[in-house]
Amino acid sequence: MSQIRGNQSISFKNPPYIISWASVAGNKEGEGPLKEQFDKIETDDYAGEDTWEAAESALIKEAIGLTIQKANVRKDDIRYIFGGDLLGQNMATTFGVMDYKIPLFGLYGACSTAGESLSLAAMTVAAGYTEHAIAATSSHFASAERQFRYPLEYAGQRPLSSTWTVTGSGAFMVSSQKSKIKIAGITTGKVVDYGVKDSMNMGAAMAPAAAEMIKQCLKDFDYRPQDFDLIATGDLGQVGRDLLISLLEKEQVDIQNNHKDCGMMVFDITTQEVGSGGSGCGCSAVTLAAEILPKLERGELKRVLFVPTGALLSTVSFNEGNSIPGIAHGVILEHTEG
Amino acid sequence: MSQIRGNQSISFKNPPYIISWASVAGNKEGEGPLKEQFDKIETDDYAGEDTWEAAESALIKEAIGLTIQKANVRKDDIRYIFGGDLLGQNMATTFGVMDYKIPLFGLYGACSTAGESLSLAAMTVAAGYTEHAIAATSSHFASAERQFRYPLEYAGQRPLSSTWTVTGSGAFMVSSQKSKIKIAGITTGKVVDYGVKDSMNMGAAMAPAAAEMIKQCLKDFDYRPQDFDLIATGDLGQVGRDLLISLLEKEQVDIQNNHKDCGMMVFDITTQEVGSGGSGCGCSAVTLAAEILPKLERGELKRVLFVPTGALLSTVSFNEGNSIPGIAHGVILEHTEG
Repeated sequence: MSQIRGNQSISFKNPPYIISWASVAGNKEGEGPLKEQFDKIETDDYAGEDTWEAAESALIKEAIGLTIQKANVRKDDIRYIFGGDLLGQNMATTFGVMDYKIPLFGLYGACSTAGESLSLAAMTVAAGYTEHAIAATSSHFASAERQFRYPLEYAGQRPLSSTWTVTGSGAFMVSSQKSKIKIAGITTGKVVDYGVKDSMNMGAAMAPAAAEMIKQCLKDFDYRPQDFDLIATGDLGQVGRDLLISLLEKEQVDIQNNHKDCGMMVFDITTQEVGSGGSGCGCSAVTLAAEILPKLERGELKRVLFVPTGALLSTVSFNEGNSIPGIAHGVILEHTEG
Repeated sequence: MSQIRGNQSISFKNPPYIISWASVAGNKEGEGPLKEQFDKIETDDYAGEDTWEAAESALIKEAIGLTIQKANVRKDDIRYIFGGDLLGQNMATTFGVMDYKIPLFGLYGACSTAGESLSLAAMTVAAGYTEHAIAATSSHFASAERQFRYPLEYAGQRPLSSTWTVTGSGAFMVSSQKSKIKIAGITTGKVVDYGVKDSMNMGAAMAPAAAEMIKQCLKDFDYRPQDFDLIATGDLGQVGRDLLISLLEKEQVDIQNNHKDCGMMVFDITTQEVGSGGSGCGCSAVTLAAEILPKLERGELKRVLFVPTGALLSTVSFNEGNSIPGIAHGVILEHTEG
C-alpha cells in the first residue's frame, strides 16, 4: 500500500510514461489558438461519414491510429483501450475503437473522461498488467447538441454562460517505456452536487467538484499550488473558472496565477463566439495533446495538474428536474530527463 | 509482467477476494427461482421515488449500503467505487453512489458492466491501490424500456427473442482481506460486431462476443471447459445461449454441460413471460450475488467463469441503422479454504 497517498490519491512507485499522443480537431477548433499544433484538422464536419455520431467515431479512430503509429509499438503489445465519450451508451467510442480489436474498458465520466481514462491506464501500466495502454476520448459539437440540447436545425439561442462542445479527439499511449513525460500520480474524484440545475451553465455545475478535488490533491501530496507550473481544468469556461478560483480562495488556496482552463485555451473566447469557452471530453483531451504535453516534453512545464471536469446529466435526469452533479479526475504530469 | 496471461488475460499473483455482496431485486424477480436468496425484494416498483430512474438509483444505493454493512469495513478504507448502468450518461449510478462520497470510476459496458466493474476493482485491489473497492451495477425494467424501446404506456408487443430487463442491483466488496472466494483472474473483451441489427434479439448480438471471449480465456489460461464447474453468461437468454453453444461447437469447444445463463436463472422463462430470459446490468449482478457466490462460498462450486455480456447500442445508433456490436468481460472466481 506504499503508493497510497492521503484519502484519494496514488503516487506511482513505478510511474508510467506518456510515450505518444495525437489530437484530431474540427474546423472551428482549427481556427483557434491551437490551430498550428493539432496533428490533424478535419475540415469536413461529417468527417466523410453520414451522421454526426459516425463522424465522432471517425475522429477517435483517427486519433488512436496516429497515437499507435507515433509510438511505434506492436499493436499486440497494447492490451487495453480505456475510452469514452459523451453520447448515450458511449456509441462514438464503441464504433471508433472496434476495428483495432484491442480489449476495451468503456468509461463514462462526462467531460472528466480524459482524466478518468488516463488514471486507469496509468494504474494498469504501473501495476504491470500491460506494457502499453491507450487512453482516448472524443466529443463532437453536433452529436452533443443532438444528445443534450436541441438538434442544430432548431437554431436555439445560447446564453453567455453556456459552453461550446469541442469537435475533436485526443488519444494517449501510456507505457512502461520511458519518455520525458511521467505520470507521477492521480487523484480520483467523487460525485459532488451543489444543486445547480442550469444545463446552460455547466461550468458552475463542475467548479465545486474541481475545487474539492484540487484541494484534496494538494493535501494528499502535500503540495502548494505554486508547486505546479500549471493547473489545467478541463472545460469550466470563464464562468466556471471564476467560480473555481473563488471557491478555493475561501479555503485559503490561491491558484489564480497558475490556473488555466482548457476550454479557454482551445478557443479564443473573445472572438470565436463560443460563450464561456469550449467543453466536452474532446476539449481537455485535444488541449492536453496539442498544447500541454509538447511543453512538458520540452521542459517548458515541469509539473502539471491536469483536471478534466465532468457535468453529470442526461436529458432524462435534467427533464425530471434533477440537479447536475459534477466530478473531476486529476492527473499529475511531470517533465523528466531520465 | 508475470501476471499477464496470453493475449487478453491476467492471472493475479496476489489475488483479491470478494468479502461481501448484496442483491436488491424487484417484484417480478422476487417471484422467480431466486426469490428466497435475494437480500431484499423491493415490492414498490418506484422504490419510494418519483421516477423510474430515481428508483433505479435507490436500488444501487441500497445494494452498496448492504455490502458495506456486511463487510464490516470502515467507509474510509474503501477508496473506489467502480460502477455503471444502462441509462444514458450513467445517471442511475451517479445519483445512487453520490451520498457515499467515495471516489467513483464510472463505467459503461452495457450489460457487461458487472464483469467490467469486478475486473477493474480486482486489478486495483491486487495492485495494492486500495484495501477495498466496490463494484456495483444496476438496471430497472421501466427505466430501460424508456431508454431503449418504448415508454411502458405504449404497450408495445414483444417478440419471443426479446429479453426482459431485470429490476435490481448487485454490489460486491473486492478486498485484499481473505475470504472463501478468490478472484483468480480476468479476461477482458473486445468489441465484436457480427452485423446483428435486431434490438429485440440482443442475445444474438452478444453471443459472438461471449464466444470469442470464452475461447480466448480457455486459451490464455490453458483450461478446458470442464475445468470450470460453471460458465455463467450474463443475459443471452435462450436464443443467445443456443447460438453461443453452437458458435463454440464450431471451434471444437463444448461448454454445453457446464454453461448456464444468468438471464435463465433469475427468471423461470417457461412461466414468467419474459421472452428469452432476463437481461440488463442487474441481471448478472443479482444472479452472481444471490445464487453463484453463496455456492462458491460453501464450496459447492469450485471454479466459475462469470461472463457478463453487453449489447452496445443506443437509440441514436439503432435509429441511424447501425449494427449492434457486443462485448463480454470474464472473471474467474474460485472457492478457496485459505
